[in-house]
Amino acid sequence: MEFRLAKRMSNLKASEIRELLKLAEMPEIISFAGGMPAPELFPIKEMELVTKKVLEDQGKLALQYGPTEGYRPLRKIIAEQRMKKSGVNADENNILVTSGSQQGLDFTGRIFLDKDDIVICESPSYLGAINAFKAYEPKFVEVPMDDNGMIIEELEKALSENPTAKFIYTIPDFQNPTGKTLSVDRRKRMVELAEKYNIPIIEDNPYGELIYEGDVLPSIKSFDKNGIVVYLGTFSKTFCPGLRIGWVCADKEILSKYIIVKQGADLQTNSMSQREAAIFMENYNLNDHINKIKEVYKKRRDLMLETMKQEFPENCTFTYPKGGLFTWVTLPEGLDAAKILEICLKENVAFVPGGSFFPNGGHSNHFRLNFSNMTEEKIVEGIKRLGKVLRSL
Amino acid sequence: MEFRLAKRMSNLKASEIRELLKLAEMPEIISFAGGMPAPELFPIKEMELVTKKVLEDQGKLALQYGPTEGYRPLRKIIAEQRMKKSGVNADENNILVTSGSQQGLDFTGRIFLDKDDIVICESPSYLGAINAFKAYEPKFVEVPMDDNGMIIEELEKALSENPTAKFIYTIPDFQNPTGKTLSVDRRKRMVELAEKYNIPIIEDNPYGELIYEGDVLPSIKSFDKNGIVVYLGTFSKTFCPGLRIGWVCADKEILSKYIIVKQGADLQTNSMSQREAAIFMENYNLNDHINKIKEVYKKRRDLMLETMKQEFPENCTFTYPKGGLFTWVTLPEGLDAAKILEICLKENVAFVPGGSFFPNGGHSNHFRLNFSNMTEEKIVEGIKRLGKVLRSL
Repeated sequence: MEFRLAKRMSNLKASEIRELLKLAEMPEIISFAGGMPAPELFPIKEMELVTKKVLEDQGKLALQYGPTEGYRPLRKIIAEQRMKKSGVNADENNILVTSGSQQGLDFTGRIFLDKDDIVICESPSYLGAINAFKAYEPKFVEVPMDDNGMIIEELEKALSENPTAKFIYTIPDFQNPTGKTLSVDRRKRMVELAEKYNIPIIEDNPYGELIYEGDVLPSIKSFDKNGIVVYLGTFSKTFCPGLRIGWVCADKEILSKYIIVKQGADLQTNSMSQREAAIFMENYNLNDHINKIKEVYKKRRDLMLETMKQEFPENCTFTYPKGGLFTWVTLPEGLDAAKILEICLKENVAFVPGGSFFPNGGHSNHFRLNFSNMTEEKIVEGIKRLGKVLRSL
Repeated sequence: MEFRLAKRMSNLKASEIRELLKLAEMPEIISFAGGMPAPELFPIKEMELVTKKVLEDQGKLALQYGPTEGYRPLRKIIAEQRMKKSGVNADENNILVTSGSQQGLDFTGRIFLDKDDIVICESPSYLGAINAFKAYEPKFVEVPMDDNGMIIEELEKALSENPTAKFIYTIPDFQNPTGKTLSVDRRKRMVELAEKYNIPIIEDNPYGELIYEGDVLPSIKSFDKNGIVVYLGTFSKTFCPGLRIGWVCADKEILSKYIIVKQGADLQTNSMSQREAAIFMENYNLNDHINKIKEVYKKRRDLMLETMKQEFPENCTFTYPKGGLFTWVTLPEGLDAAKILEICLKENVAFVPGGSFFPNGGHSNHFRLNFSNMTEEKIVEGIKRLGKVLRSL
């Protein structure tokens, strides 16, 4: 049957790279492709206790429909623990629980974007956000970055040239894909610019708590006095992605739009998982768990970067992320990382080619490496294999 | 902060009725408003065992990211157990797991609808579907129903007058809100018409297995030879809504569009709940559980209808549903059920006024009653209170 589909569907094609990366799921492949946490660190024993408690004490409620806004005690914990840690004063009425922060991205597109509206974002930016926004057919204006994140003068230029832009999308901490961090000073400047142009900031912050050097940075939202920042958070990197629990933190008026959209999109997030997360965080200190994760990921990061220094040819440069899950490799101009991936897959090692992180195309001489999901042994072996391919080019 | 939002947001307003119905959540209210299962029937003990098993045997996978398509063994169970029961030959490659079937509705809108496209639906139709589709700014053509569901001659008229309509949306079994059922003969005719006009059918079937008289009816999709029917299913009514597990069953080509859209919308449905559902259905027979539910709901339906016959004034008519969760009350023309709700809330009894189930407005002299969620005692007491208000008008 040939169906007549909505026009937006022509922008949403199955990516060839996604197909290629399905190969990366085979067990013999050392994959630096995904953005997955280390499963050996999941608090499985604790989850067994928590789940038992949820079903015993509140089974009828945990298996029933719940409110669209989310389970109130969890919203309170998110406001008082997570948001406070990143410098934000919020309460549960500022929190909507979403099915992962990917859903927060989709809702952002739905709330703000008409066809041909402008999204201002980092160059490169998160592939999943680009795809979520593309469903609403916007145009992207990419703002160049340096080692301190989005270059503020370039952002101001983009804003003054596109004063009707609908929002600035940014991942300030250990950005996906580059691993770069927006300096604190630039965070303040970004809020000032957003206010000057009356254009909201969508702060996507999945990695902020995974900082390996120093304390958690104040979020952009922590500098927001007038409700111009919508903050997207998630437990996928600090707890368990399989539970699909993220959140939106925003002023009540704009949050009410997210709630209406959620009602139509999936009614509510999983009742049982929300209660499990809440009971976990009432009975254990998530910060302790995060410290355990950080220790392991820091080691993996150090080992990966050290091995890259030894094994990669000198004309390949890469970033030194202070946190998060990724480093970003730049090859000499003219090389195509997607083609190199095909060779690497034959050597049983995988990464994500960088081109898809640029919404307007180009820049195929980059790729992204994840260091959280593979063991130290596999990191060394995988980087050696990669280095061998790169040196052979 | 005043934000410039997408145009679609002007269609998506917080409904006054939803605000009113928040009152219905107070414990002193006997609420026939929601569409919630009876929580005392949830298989809590079994879920304790199942959850323990999932975490013990496959904890790392249950807490990790999983494939967008869903957990393969669950997809297989859905195809081989649920779809087969409604007469459909499908395998796991025809199944996408969604976060409730509400998400299937949202995706349907996203895949098919451009602004001002036409949706053909029953008059009245499911409020949640209307709201999900409205995010994509379509127009609705309502097809009148009789006791056997959508009137086929009226459907043909709607199709011939709107040959560019994007899809026919229907809830064939114990429809929400009317409780009416599309006759088997009309199901066949509907498929023929869909093929004649090359317009797909979206078959939303949350209640089909909750039939209180006779066997499960063959679904519309069971008559589909050419992939013109997209079937939306869910475990929310037959198992546990809090797990948010629904599915789309469709031919692979159109299903691939739903998968792409899901990737951008929320990456995947909760890994842990998918595995819990699968392990439950491998270890217990869901049909046994459904039989237990049916026995209770049938009694509640009978009791509600019997009490309505005694307590309601003669100028109020209502449907006799053969299954599902709802009966539909028609008041004399000129009465406004939304106004009557305000009076009823003072008497601590609630329902959903019917107007919102008509996408093009009007018809305020109807309301919907749910009989699954309240105990027999409360059903009798609540209907008495309702009857008292109705007789006083």
